[in-house]
Amino acid sequence: MSNQATKPHERLADVLADDLVAVNDLITARMASEHAPRIPQVTSHLVGAGGKRLRPMLTLAAARLCGYEGAHHIKLAATVEFIHTATLLHDDVVDESGQRRGRPTANLLWDNKSSVLVGDYLFSRSFQLMVETGSLRVLDILANASATIAEGEVLQLTAASDLATDEAVYTQIVRGKTAALFSAATQVGGVIAGASEDQVQALYDYGDALGIAFQIADDLLDYQGDAATTGKNVGDDFRERKLTLPVIKAVAMASPEERAFWERTIAKGRQQDGDLEQALALMDKYGTLDATRADAIGWADKAKASLGRLPDHPIRTILHNLTDYVVARLN
Amino acid sequence: MSNQATKPHERLADVLADDLVAVNDLITARMASEHAPRIPQVTSHLVGAGGKRLRPMLTLAAARLCGYEGAHHIKLAATVEFIHTATLLHDDVVDESGQRRGRPTANLLWDNKSSVLVGDYLFSRSFQLMVETGSLRVLDILANASATIAEGEVLQLTAASDLATDEAVYTQIVRGKTAALFSAATQVGGVIAGASEDQVQALYDYGDALGIAFQIADDLLDYQGDAATTGKNVGDDFRERKLTLPVIKAVAMASPEERAFWERTIAKGRQQDGDLEQALALMDKYGTLDATRADAIGWADKAKASLGRLPDHPIRTILHNLTDYVVARLN
Repeated sequence: MSNQATKPHERLADVLADDLVAVNDLITARMASEHAPRIPQVTSHLVGAGGKRLRPMLTLAAARLCGYEGAHHIKLAATVEFIHTATLLHDDVVDESGQRRGRPTANLLWDNKSSVLVGDYLFSRSFQLMVETGSLRVLDILANASATIAEGEVLQLTAASDLATDEAVYTQIVRGKTAALFSAATQVGGVIAGASEDQVQALYDYGDALGIAFQIADDLLDYQGDAATTGKNVGDDFRERKLTLPVIKAVAMASPEERAFWERTIAKGRQQDGDLEQALALMDKYGTLDATRADAIGWADKAKASLGRLPDHPIRTILHNLTDYVVARLN
Repeated sequence: MSNQATKPHERLADVLADDLVAVNDLITARMASEHAPRIPQVTSHLVGAGGKRLRPMLTLAAARLCGYEGAHHIKLAATVEFIHTATLLHDDVVDESGQRRGRPTANLLWDNKSSVLVGDYLFSRSFQLMVETGSLRVLDILANASATIAEGEVLQLTAASDLATDEAVYTQIVRGKTAALFSAATQVGGVIAGASEDQVQALYDYGDALGIAFQIADDLLDYQGDAATTGKNVGDDFRERKLTLPVIKAVAMASPEERAFWERTIAKGRQQDGDLEQALALMDKYGTLDATRADAIGWADKAKASLGRLPDHPIRTILHNLTDYVVARLN
């Protein structure tokens, strides 16, 4: 079961296998719509495409780690996956994406309208599920996470190509994009299990730091990843004029001439052949890829430290390994 | 104060004047965003454009009618307005609208991305507000209303130009589009006031029937309204191939030849000069405009009957007059 050859999220899926079956059944039941056949078409396209179910696993893991024996964690895990899926549907409209998880996106297969409205539907279904748990604390956490997610997305829209965007704004965007749902996922698992305030806080800290490490790693891999492993082409973010941490750090140290380069390529989007190479050379000059890697590792360390405030449990070990795995991709 | 020359919703605004000031202040405070300036830009454009604040007034009216003396009805009224505004933002993206309340829509002034994401933000803000009331019953009602709204919107997307759409499907679309938020608005007002189950049910029935009457009236005015009064051109729904009640009734009675006409103009959308006149002639032939008016009046009567199960109160009289006003436009 804890075969060292398997990846941590696969071991987590093993340990939580029964819970995950229940979550998948609930997702299938709740994403149906008696009246609007377009809804299951769109959702099953997306949910059927798989994905690692990382977020719902975090909720299940947190609840189990805190000794939960009830059934509400299944509803909360499905809630978290619905929120995630709703966000993906709206993101694909906003990004005008054509591919997601190696398949055409819903907005391409159907239309933007369906993606917007089915996203709204999934969000309202998640809302119904969380109300069923009867926990106002859980509702409060998920309401706040939803606001952070939406605010971060709007912020990204306006700040992504603005050279004034600094590391603080970047962290906030990253919280909205990834960490807010990670931390809500772990936190509600602890709340539903009746964990102590300190443990609930530790679960929040773990999810938050893991999410930030995860997103920084993702942004770093965009510049130094191997397309065969990551499925992304090097420099996609540069071509899409998205300011991420490696560039933000390079902009902060830029000479006037270098700043003009970033101004032209990112702020104005007037890119030409050789610009990506020049951008990589500037990141190399200031060591921003290494500094970004160090930041990711710092957040991973913070995540692992938070685990120390939680009960000793086999799942805690897997969460520790999962954290290492997120940044191990960077070496 | 109850000057007979004023319209019922204006009298309601008079009676609820202090509450409405508090609602507007709360809306302004909560739609702000410290971090993402795009959010208040978009929302103040929309909220600043006015609108009659009908939905929040229904919540305030229901709470006051049931003797409420607390402050949560202000939060719930703002919640309802945020949900409404979020829906409008997403609707304008879905309908590719260029105008709303006589001004350019947000999707035209900024972009579809902003409309989608700011809509999500307002929805999450509404979610935070309702959690603050601490009432699980209120959360349950609003979660179910959100699901009905989203499902109705998706249903409209697929059913609007499908000749198989019958009156039952139409009613469901109308509930999603209008009545679900009306009935949730009145119902939560009663719940927060601690009204009896029968009164809460009466408030639901009132909001539901008023909302359906309101939407049927709107759909009817599209075919027989005066552009100067309604601000719409006769036949907009026909040109946009939206099956509404007057056409659904005509399709149900159509000869094979007439059915081919509806097939061509609505299902296939191949319209030519004279088609609107032909459509109006068919509605006249079967008296579907009169039948639609009778349906709207029937729902208005149902709404007024529901008021009989509520406490005798000056606000109850205004809600009665408001119901008459909704269908009086049809004569």
